[in-house]
Amino acid sequence: MSMSRFEGVLAPVITPFDASLLPDLPAYLDHCRWLSEQGAGLAVFGTNSEAASLSLAEKLNLLEQLLQAGIDPGLLMPGTGTTALPDTVELTAAATRVGCRGVLMLPPYYFKNVSDDGLFAYFSEVINRVADDRLQIYLYHIPQITQVPLSLALLEKLAAAYPNHIAGIKDSSGDPEFLRQLNGLELTDFRVFCGSESLLLENLRQGGAGCISATANINPAAIRALCQHWQDADADSRQQQLNGLRKLFQRLPMIPALKTAVGRYRSNPGWERLRPPLLGLTSEQRQELFAGLLDLDFRIPVDVT
Amino acid sequence: MSMSRFEGVLAPVITPFDASLLPDLPAYLDHCRWLSEQGAGLAVFGTNSEAASLSLAEKLNLLEQLLQAGIDPGLLMPGTGTTALPDTVELTAAATRVGCRGVLMLPPYYFKNVSDDGLFAYFSEVINRVADDRLQIYLYHIPQITQVPLSLALLEKLAAAYPNHIAGIKDSSGDPEFLRQLNGLELTDFRVFCGSESLLLENLRQGGAGCISATANINPAAIRALCQHWQDADADSRQQQLNGLRKLFQRLPMIPALKTAVGRYRSNPGWERLRPPLLGLTSEQRQELFAGLLDLDFRIPVDVT
Repeated sequence: MSMSRFEGVLAPVITPFDASLLPDLPAYLDHCRWLSEQGAGLAVFGTNSEAASLSLAEKLNLLEQLLQAGIDPGLLMPGTGTTALPDTVELTAAATRVGCRGVLMLPPYYFKNVSDDGLFAYFSEVINRVADDRLQIYLYHIPQITQVPLSLALLEKLAAAYPNHIAGIKDSSGDPEFLRQLNGLELTDFRVFCGSESLLLENLRQGGAGCISATANINPAAIRALCQHWQDADADSRQQQLNGLRKLFQRLPMIPALKTAVGRYRSNPGWERLRPPLLGLTSEQRQELFAGLLDLDFRIPVDVT
Repeated sequence: MSMSRFEGVLAPVITPFDASLLPDLPAYLDHCRWLSEQGAGLAVFGTNSEAASLSLAEKLNLLEQLLQAGIDPGLLMPGTGTTALPDTVELTAAATRVGCRGVLMLPPYYFKNVSDDGLFAYFSEVINRVADDRLQIYLYHIPQITQVPLSLALLEKLAAAYPNHIAGIKDSSGDPEFLRQLNGLELTDFRVFCGSESLLLENLRQGGAGCISATANINPAAIRALCQHWQDADADSRQQQLNGLRKLFQRLPMIPALKTAVGRYRSNPGWERLRPPLLGLTSEQRQELFAGLLDLDFRIPVDVT
């Protein structure tokens, strides 16, 4: 019996590192528990998780630790797409085997100007090798990073060939027109997530499923509330309020800003560590962040029960 | 006692796959032996090797197999740069430990618009973690693929901080002006390789060290001959002759064209297999390739002693 597909808000969970730049498991599990209590799904190993800076072995281990810690796999949408077919297959198979509700899959992003046929062959090979009825793939469109866009024609072809496995898409392009086109696709139960809550209300009104947004790492409850109340009279004002916080983080380098904010609210400056090539905020950027949070009168409700 | 740094011609060794898309070891070793007999160094795990499509475990295993097969590690410049610090460190350490004369290192290429300070921190961390006096890094500049260029300022800073480890660069940008600037850097024994033999004579006349070129997979001896005879009267005509073959391959998708040509000359159509997202040539492209080779009266001297 398969689970229903994802909807609502998911956080691409940021990854804390210890002084040796190894994943800091206690801080990580705390954050995951807090996010799930706030009603957010856990898109671990996403762009904002610095997943590209983690090894396959580290990702497999973190996945196991999450489950051992009692995190519900029904909340998990790990990012499993890499540049290499065997790695993508191994991580996707592991995630599916342990019951993750879905996986978020980048296209292979090293080679550029690859054809739709080549991408179709790649995703087909992954699906065939994983060979698990439960596999639910959310494709990950983030062309400003991958430089490998996913075309509407490719999505239609994949969904037609693998309707039980192609579950949806995360659109991080930020292009409202592409989002509209995605929601216009005539596909059965294809879940469209926008990559930022700034397009959330628009997405929901078009029939979209929700958002998978970096800032859900600090503002999950309010984003979730818009998902629940998007048909209410105050929906536009809720969207407005979300936009203020989002804009603050978008003015700054997103990942270090998120980690700095979480470290501040949790009184754990270790959260500010990043793996190079990413670096922490400058002192000017920190000031801008903290002043901005104050201006917005924003506090993270960090209590973990 | 350390080996001298690389010079001359190296081939980014193409990787044959069997029917299961696993590396075809016998065909691989044959090709590596033939290349070395032709006087080419072996830049295994490069772009044209489909290294991005190989897992870390596969690369570690192929490296071990090359050594077990008696390939001289003094010929080897494996590509070891990945997006993830731990993977880059593991592969670089392994290559250095077994005596590879150098490694070719991409910058971490997932995140875009990273700062020079971030890249410096990354390469420093790799060097410090590998912690091996023999480590010789050739940086890999291929911005059309990585979208993460290496600036002259970064190169100077790295070479100043790690003169014993920063051995040179492969410049695959194809930009003659950048190549000229690289050769103008005042760095001690910094080896500049162009990424195509079409700039080889220009590079050598500027004081460059040679080339690491895709088409060295099929034309190594003639490219090497230009490296040896670049001060002779016939150097320009040698360059001209190299350009003809290079242009043919540049008109086609490079990697499948190389594999198709090698498969043809070795009478082993298995060579034509690629891992998706790359696909084989269309029948029109095959025709264009074979007609072009005939026009140039080009044959690969494939005999392996």
